[in-house]
Amino acid sequence: MSEDGGRRRARGGGGAARRAERTAVRIEVARFIERNIPNFEVLNEEALQIIEANAETVLEEIGVAFVDNPAALKLWKDAGADVQGERVRLPKGLARKLCATAPSSYVQHARNPARNVEIGGRTLVLAPVYGPPFVRDAAGGRRYATIADFQKFVKLTYMSKWLHHSGGTVCEPTDVAVNKRHLDMLLAHMTLSDKPFMGSVTEPRRAQDSVDMCKILFGAEFVAENTVMTSLININSPLTFDSTMMGALEVFAANNQASIISPFIVGGAMAPVSVAGTLTQVTAEILAGVAYSQLVRPGAPVIAGAFVTSIDMNSGAPTFGTPEAAHITYGMGQIVRRLGLPYRSAGSFCGSKLPDAQAAYETSNSLNVGLLSGVNFMLHAAGWLEGGLVASFEKFVMDADQLGTLHHIARGVDVTVGAQAMDALREVGPGGHFLGCAHTQANFKEAFWRTDLFDYKPFETWAEEGERDTVALAGARVEKLLRDYQAPPMEPATREALMAYVDNKKASEPDAFG
Amino acid sequence: MSEDGGRRRARGGGGAARRAERTAVRIEVARFIERNIPNFEVLNEEALQIIEANAETVLEEIGVAFVDNPAALKLWKDAGADVQGERVRLPKGLARKLCATAPSSYVQHARNPARNVEIGGRTLVLAPVYGPPFVRDAAGGRRYATIADFQKFVKLTYMSKWLHHSGGTVCEPTDVAVNKRHLDMLLAHMTLSDKPFMGSVTEPRRAQDSVDMCKILFGAEFVAENTVMTSLININSPLTFDSTMMGALEVFAANNQASIISPFIVGGAMAPVSVAGTLTQVTAEILAGVAYSQLVRPGAPVIAGAFVTSIDMNSGAPTFGTPEAAHITYGMGQIVRRLGLPYRSAGSFCGSKLPDAQAAYETSNSLNVGLLSGVNFMLHAAGWLEGGLVASFEKFVMDADQLGTLHHIARGVDVTVGAQAMDALREVGPGGHFLGCAHTQANFKEAFWRTDLFDYKPFETWAEEGERDTVALAGARVEKLLRDYQAPPMEPATREALMAYVDNKKASEPDAFG
Repeated sequence: MSEDGGRRRARGGGGAARRAERTAVRIEVARFIERNIPNFEVLNEEALQIIEANAETVLEEIGVAFVDNPAALKLWKDAGADVQGERVRLPKGLARKLCATAPSSYVQHARNPARNVEIGGRTLVLAPVYGPPFVRDAAGGRRYATIADFQKFVKLTYMSKWLHHSGGTVCEPTDVAVNKRHLDMLLAHMTLSDKPFMGSVTEPRRAQDSVDMCKILFGAEFVAENTVMTSLININSPLTFDSTMMGALEVFAANNQASIISPFIVGGAMAPVSVAGTLTQVTAEILAGVAYSQLVRPGAPVIAGAFVTSIDMNSGAPTFGTPEAAHITYGMGQIVRRLGLPYRSAGSFCGSKLPDAQAAYETSNSLNVGLLSGVNFMLHAAGWLEGGLVASFEKFVMDADQLGTLHHIARGVDVTVGAQAMDALREVGPGGHFLGCAHTQANFKEAFWRTDLFDYKPFETWAEEGERDTVALAGARVEKLLRDYQAPPMEPATREALMAYVDNKKASEPDAFG
Repeated sequence: MSEDGGRRRARGGGGAARRAERTAVRIEVARFIERNIPNFEVLNEEALQIIEANAETVLEEIGVAFVDNPAALKLWKDAGADVQGERVRLPKGLARKLCATAPSSYVQHARNPARNVEIGGRTLVLAPVYGPPFVRDAAGGRRYATIADFQKFVKLTYMSKWLHHSGGTVCEPTDVAVNKRHLDMLLAHMTLSDKPFMGSVTEPRRAQDSVDMCKILFGAEFVAENTVMTSLININSPLTFDSTMMGALEVFAANNQASIISPFIVGGAMAPVSVAGTLTQVTAEILAGVAYSQLVRPGAPVIAGAFVTSIDMNSGAPTFGTPEAAHITYGMGQIVRRLGLPYRSAGSFCGSKLPDAQAAYETSNSLNVGLLSGVNFMLHAAGWLEGGLVASFEKFVMDADQLGTLHHIARGVDVTVGAQAMDALREVGPGGHFLGCAHTQANFKEAFWRTDLFDYKPFETWAEEGERDTVALAGARVEKLLRDYQAPPMEPATREALMAYVDNKKASEPDAFG
């Protein structure tokens, strides 16, 4: 635990909290997106029926594997599945029937109720990158991530208007023991931000630590009755559910905490080298995974996920922002909606090593597809670089700025009388201009989305200021946001209790690395 | 005329042409896009009706101005419009009725019939940037464009698989006299490429030169019966049609050549500061402009265009890739389809001074919107930089590469038995991998879109090769394409005749500059 997220900032609560609030930099946070636009549907009814039928065939004939998990096998058997060894075959319709108890949307609570998010239906909740072992910035290049980097990303997310969710493993704090870093990560999300966050999934008992720390933060009674975490449970594609991930899922489901049940697929390697084949496999995997969550606890909140990319057949590297990823993301959105489940997909995906044009084309492709696919929870919405190996500070603020465009597109087109602007058209007439007219004066401040990052200065000004590219502008913005950051107020007793929990847990076992 | 487009390359035709063909670098050119995906519709029926009704009200009550054009005023009066001075007011329904004679799609012929394009319906034809007075590359920075730059862009377009159309003023050859540069530009399109191209619109007699040169290239009879040019006619928004542009339109329409009739709008300046207001104005302008083309010659091919951007209220600069531009582009697509006309919009739009991340985010936003809006002709699809002031060589090949993704998305999802890949799912089963399976071996080469530009190398290889960013990769690709370029074969007599036309025209009047 660095001093930054810990004791030195032990202001907050009581008089100190009130003083902090008075001097606080006002941060603006957008409410999660509620779409007022249609979803884009790439599959027709016939295609949907083919894929859904094939997915049922996969579950019945090929089945899925639940590895090292006798309790799961028993649940499946009792539910009517054909269990042979670790292979579970589901008669047609069984998985779909079990999925029916999962809620179509749920509220994830934040410690600041103004930051609560609703996930499902027409909403879209945006969360930062998850999982990179490296970080990069222009000054320091690419290097292993530390807990200090992690804390910076939590602060940047807290300061970002368009990110609604603090995420989970925004980068791997590799300087903290493997068996203890989840504690520091949770503590950072809980103390440095007041946005909702994710729990640990790397071992069932770390999931339990997540639940226990939430009980301190929210109160045990509140946690028993409300969802306060959404955590990422990956399926080992193809068609395999390992005991680590399922163990974490079991802990969360039993505690009524939400899980994203998501294949992690590089198309051509972990799924067939075709869109329809991949859609079939992902549908089967989601059906089995969500059904299992409902066997553990009917009604447990879950999100059906699809993390899908293609493979570059030259290098074997995953590729991003591709047409095939677009097709799969659109198609899975349709299939998941027909299941009545919240949907997770898309993100600031790119293969580039640098936050350059390649990174931005790829990312923009994916972000736009995500919006129109009806995604409800977008993990990795900012900061992803180099196929997810790297969390980039500059790209984080670039992506976070672009997320504003999704909010504005999602609003749809206002056709109220004021927006029709017939008065303006009459006032200006042929050959005039609108800059000074009454309608423009009344509306220009709110009319257009405005970037907090991009350059639109006159060429000469831009040249005089050093011909800065997007990376340079982003670097300056990262510094400013971190300089302006102030921790949201917190009761000192809560902070003390959280830190005591972390200290005790850390003292209870030796460090493990690797 | 530089030597490059002219005499030195006077091979082609007869034995020389056959020899050239044998040694030619094989270039791959994709057929224009035929969409097998739905269009995205942001406006509901009620919104569409409001905007269409308001547009009719604008035409009837406010009207449009036809400036310095008594012949146009007479045509309007005879057609039933209320003409007072230069103001033309159209009774409701008149413009829409006149638009009905415009074809819903047309074929633009290229001198190589394999490069003919169909514009309208579900097609999308891609053409390069148009109009920048400056060029930029990493080596030379930003500088005034020359005819040598122009010729390079024509060659790059010819070499680009995903560009179907050679465009028009890909950059302004500022080293050639204003009154003669159209001749050199046309000659470059005609001799250095065999893709379809645009005519000159900067004066009616330059439009006539375009027609006359086409008669040499295609034969007068062919031109009389076929469309061999699509040219860009801008409306002076708001609601004004100037005599230069209308004069060019008249020449093209009278010769059955196609025109894009397109407002050029910076929202908030040349149109109201609201999406619905801008849609109303653009609809009125398109209705009046297309109707006028049909007064000149019923059945003349036209494209209804919408070039729309927002304004940055701080700097007054136009902004690109914005949510408002997305709304307008989607909405105008719906309105233009209801008019039964081909649609032009979107492009590689960006405000950035450099081909950096900002440029790529903005561009990708616009390209994706263009595809899903049902655009039929996308001018500016590659190479646009700095609000259209600059044609960038590196960005040109970046954008041209991204256009491949539009082709693949447009194909839709294949759900034939082979694509369903059930054999692969059965062969691999839980926990396996698909790289070696029969389905992958049979399909991997064609399964995924492949970039010709982006980097997916292992990190170490990339680092050893100098940590090149997209600009560096693109610079190398520009050089390679220009090195590999070979002019398509052409009959020497045709070339001689074209050059004689240009020489005679140039000799017939003194140079004009400025």
